[in-house]
Amino acid sequence: MTAERDPIAEARSQWVGHGWEDAADGMVMVTSLVRAQQLLMERLDAVLRPLGLTFARYELLRLLSFTRTGAMPMSRLGSLLQVHPTSVTSAVDRLVAQGYVERLRREQDRRVVLASITPSGLEVVEQATEGLNAEVFTSPGLTAQQVTDLAELLGALRAAAGDVVAQPIR
Amino acid sequence: MTAERDPIAEARSQWVGHGWEDAADGMVMVTSLVRAQQLLMERLDAVLRPLGLTFARYELLRLLSFTRTGAMPMSRLGSLLQVHPTSVTSAVDRLVAQGYVERLRREQDRRVVLASITPSGLEVVEQATEGLNAEVFTSPGLTAQQVTDLAELLGALRAAAGDVVAQPIR
Repeated sequence: MTAERDPIAEARSQWVGHGWEDAADGMVMVTSLVRAQQLLMERLDAVLRPLGLTFARYELLRLLSFTRTGAMPMSRLGSLLQVHPTSVTSAVDRLVAQGYVERLRREQDRRVVLASITPSGLEVVEQATEGLNAEVFTSPGLTAQQVTDLAELLGALRAAAGDVVAQPIR
Repeated sequence: MTAERDPIAEARSQWVGHGWEDAADGMVMVTSLVRAQQLLMERLDAVLRPLGLTFARYELLRLLSFTRTGAMPMSRLGSLLQVHPTSVTSAVDRLVAQGYVERLRREQDRRVVLASITPSGLEVVEQATEGLNAEVFTSPGLTAQQVTDLAELLGALRAAAGDVVAQPIR
């Protein structure tokens, strides 16, 4: 559904017209970010949906696949993925049902529940990564310079909201 | 849930380590955008939830409030908000139930259904805009220069995905 005029630029004119100049650029930035995320999510979903994954579940599998043992305590997953424990639980529930993850309990400390990636989980995350690299990450629609500039500004925005953000390597 | 290390920077190292250098910066940008959107959405929701609104429903009310008559055909709403007709229908259904919008039908062409903002809709959108301007849009967490740079890069990303994007006014 593409508009023939830029609805965000139209909103900006309205903001200025209403005397909200000091909020106009922030409104444009925030609304543009929400819209850009929606457009990117459509591209991510086009790769992930045929594999039965959402981006959130893909990120969880990817994280597990990068560990030495393929397993991680549920609480640590939430912390690394920066999501609430209830979201981790429901994502893991779904991945368990799909056969991509299994829940394990430590023998020596039965309070600790681990999520562990299965062989078919490793297979699907590999396939998803290949697809995302080819279809989205290597061709995000911007020049290489724009991509790093954008990532850096988004990093500043994340840092301002309290995320730990590493300095970009140049 | 804040990580003690930057999980996106960690993912970047993994990407490079796996030989996916050409996709690494794109992955960082896309993942940062998804994360930044999530952080901003939390701030938007903190203002809008007490008013019973989501950002999508707020945008719809805002758009109607900016029209001369407060009413617009449903199809035009979808085009301007760049969302699918089914999303417009469900947002309008919800806004009708809340008393913020009513559906009208043109007498001279009964196929055209209009969404029309009600007096209480006008009141809530005013309140929401004041809240968003004060709590989010005037203090997005970046300098004024960063805000316009970020909006411009997001505009380039939107344009690459097919959105009509107006040139920024400088």
